[in-house]
Amino acid sequence: MPRDGRIAVVGATGAVGREALAILAARGVPGELVRPIASARSAGAGVPYGEGRLLVEPLSTRAFDGCATAIFAADADTGRRFAPAAVEAGAVVVDNSSAFRMDPTVPLVVPEVNGQEAQGRTLIANPNCTTIILLVALEPLRRCCGIEAIDVATYQAVSGAGLAGIDALLSETRAALDGSAHPAATPGGVFAEPCAFNVFSHDSPVDAASGVNGEERKVIDETRRIWNDPTVRVTPTCVRVPVVRAHTEAITVTLARPSAEAELRDALARAEGIDLMDDRVANAFPTPAKAGGGDRVLVGRLRPDPGETPDPRGRQRRWCLLACADQLRKGAALNAIQIADSLGLLPAPEHGRSTLLPA
Amino acid sequence: MPRDGRIAVVGATGAVGREALAILAARGVPGELVRPIASARSAGAGVPYGEGRLLVEPLSTRAFDGCATAIFAADADTGRRFAPAAVEAGAVVVDNSSAFRMDPTVPLVVPEVNGQEAQGRTLIANPNCTTIILLVALEPLRRCCGIEAIDVATYQAVSGAGLAGIDALLSETRAALDGSAHPAATPGGVFAEPCAFNVFSHDSPVDAASGVNGEERKVIDETRRIWNDPTVRVTPTCVRVPVVRAHTEAITVTLARPSAEAELRDALARAEGIDLMDDRVANAFPTPAKAGGGDRVLVGRLRPDPGETPDPRGRQRRWCLLACADQLRKGAALNAIQIADSLGLLPAPEHGRSTLLPA
Repeated sequence: MPRDGRIAVVGATGAVGREALAILAARGVPGELVRPIASARSAGAGVPYGEGRLLVEPLSTRAFDGCATAIFAADADTGRRFAPAAVEAGAVVVDNSSAFRMDPTVPLVVPEVNGQEAQGRTLIANPNCTTIILLVALEPLRRCCGIEAIDVATYQAVSGAGLAGIDALLSETRAALDGSAHPAATPGGVFAEPCAFNVFSHDSPVDAASGVNGEERKVIDETRRIWNDPTVRVTPTCVRVPVVRAHTEAITVTLARPSAEAELRDALARAEGIDLMDDRVANAFPTPAKAGGGDRVLVGRLRPDPGETPDPRGRQRRWCLLACADQLRKGAALNAIQIADSLGLLPAPEHGRSTLLPA
Repeated sequence: MPRDGRIAVVGATGAVGREALAILAARGVPGELVRPIASARSAGAGVPYGEGRLLVEPLSTRAFDGCATAIFAADADTGRRFAPAAVEAGAVVVDNSSAFRMDPTVPLVVPEVNGQEAQGRTLIANPNCTTIILLVALEPLRRCCGIEAIDVATYQAVSGAGLAGIDALLSETRAALDGSAHPAATPGGVFAEPCAFNVFSHDSPVDAASGVNGEERKVIDETRRIWNDPTVRVTPTCVRVPVVRAHTEAITVTLARPSAEAELRDALARAEGIDLMDDRVANAFPTPAKAGGGDRVLVGRLRPDPGETPDPRGRQRRWCLLACADQLRKGAALNAIQIADSLGLLPAPEHGRSTLLPA
């Protein structure tokens, strides 16, 4: 693949699209190689790119001519309608929507977990943000000991609902602090529940029969697909919290074989893409404030499930941990760009480290 | 016990003490029967009581003369030092601190669960807020099917750290919205991590050997004690969220015998102290905004663990649910006053329902 090919960013005016542009600019990709694309409504406007701005082009099946790469940071409908045209035009597409995630002909890729599955492919699906963060945090434990079951409760930032979600949180919080009556959801907004000083079950639709919401279904199905393990038990509860852009996950994992804490801690400390942040004395662990704006998955509070009796060698199967990462970066734009980078699609960086791939 | 005895409220100027006064006033207890007590620093000040104010008296071993009841809404040290004097003076004491919770000679009581253990006792311990909410939510399932294990992740309001916690959240959030730099913890404040638009592992000390924090330890130990079940597996992860005064808990429970959804739903709908709020179509479930200021534990999102295969009759053992309740009321002041009420210590209400006990 040509390292000097053009890179289209579809949905360039949205929260994930803007983040993708920021990552490419920080990496030193010249603006003339970047083509921001958005709906006709946004076309003709400028979007920030490094120190300057780039003109937004309208989305059409012809928009991808001359592009070697297309990062789709739009909704599933846009992905379904335009990703095939981008592939047809010769681009490698990484789609951040749910359009192709469960399509058996399209790989679903987290570079730290199954990056090799992207090699040689022209259409690759980027997983759901909650799934990406969960699986990066668990990968070293999985490689070490295998995983039979995951219980996870999430503390999800409003950025998962895009710029409108961030706007709702900030404006509702301002109104609540001004004393304007009881906190209320923004009328006609993205959330049915108030955001300010509140938490609520994830806003994705709830399946009436099973009670599982859309976000939880993605975590279950995508985990099984990425791990190629259709039987791993995944029990998620997905909840929104009044945080701008980094997700937190409280995870209890059941390993396939018992392990000791030192072994797991060592595996996490050496893992790709992870910063282990685990100071029991200082009570300092991952938080969204620490993860926001960064590229790493912060992992900490690793501890044995206090309800399990360890074996005589101090090993046990159930472990608890906390993970945080920037939902817009590693949960979305960064993961997509890392996939493109792993395929040799990005120009070599001008300065600094030679790759965006997790170290 | 005399229903016209005086009621001392120790720690009357704190978050839980103020709430206790508000509950007594709303119940119609005449101000002349209520004796607000606080440290010498606060003594002589006035505290709101209904439409008026009451004078705060200084805490001393003589402060309880003539009191039939003493609600201790102070720290464990105050409980240890002064609760025996209050009992000596003839009062029945309900202590909201951790001082006596694990003392085998002192009952630890949630009225909906083990209210009978308070009968005839002069010193009763009020459990930790997270434990109370958890056990009220689970009691109907426990009575129905037995419980072998609990996995719970909490979303805890800052009011658990008192008025200083609430002040930290509101002032830090104001500063963050004003754009005053990156959110930061209040210097010298109650939390080491920033509150505004952030979540963090609970601020109680973390045991260096086990990795379990103080809040989690309370949930484990108090659950086992209240249920008189030393082997139930309890796996908590306690986390603070930027919410003012109601806690949320994401619970997965493993029943002792498999059950069908209708049976559990019916048990919850008929349970004491619980409002079942579970609308999958409208995506409307318990939230702290709905629970704040109220007396009920809101329970919803009851669903089978999607990772377990049900038996041929549709029954299974693992179930997920969400619970929310006001941390200052049912999590603290209300539970304590309900205990006193169950012992016949409160005057009959002037109007409205005849008891504060959960219906």
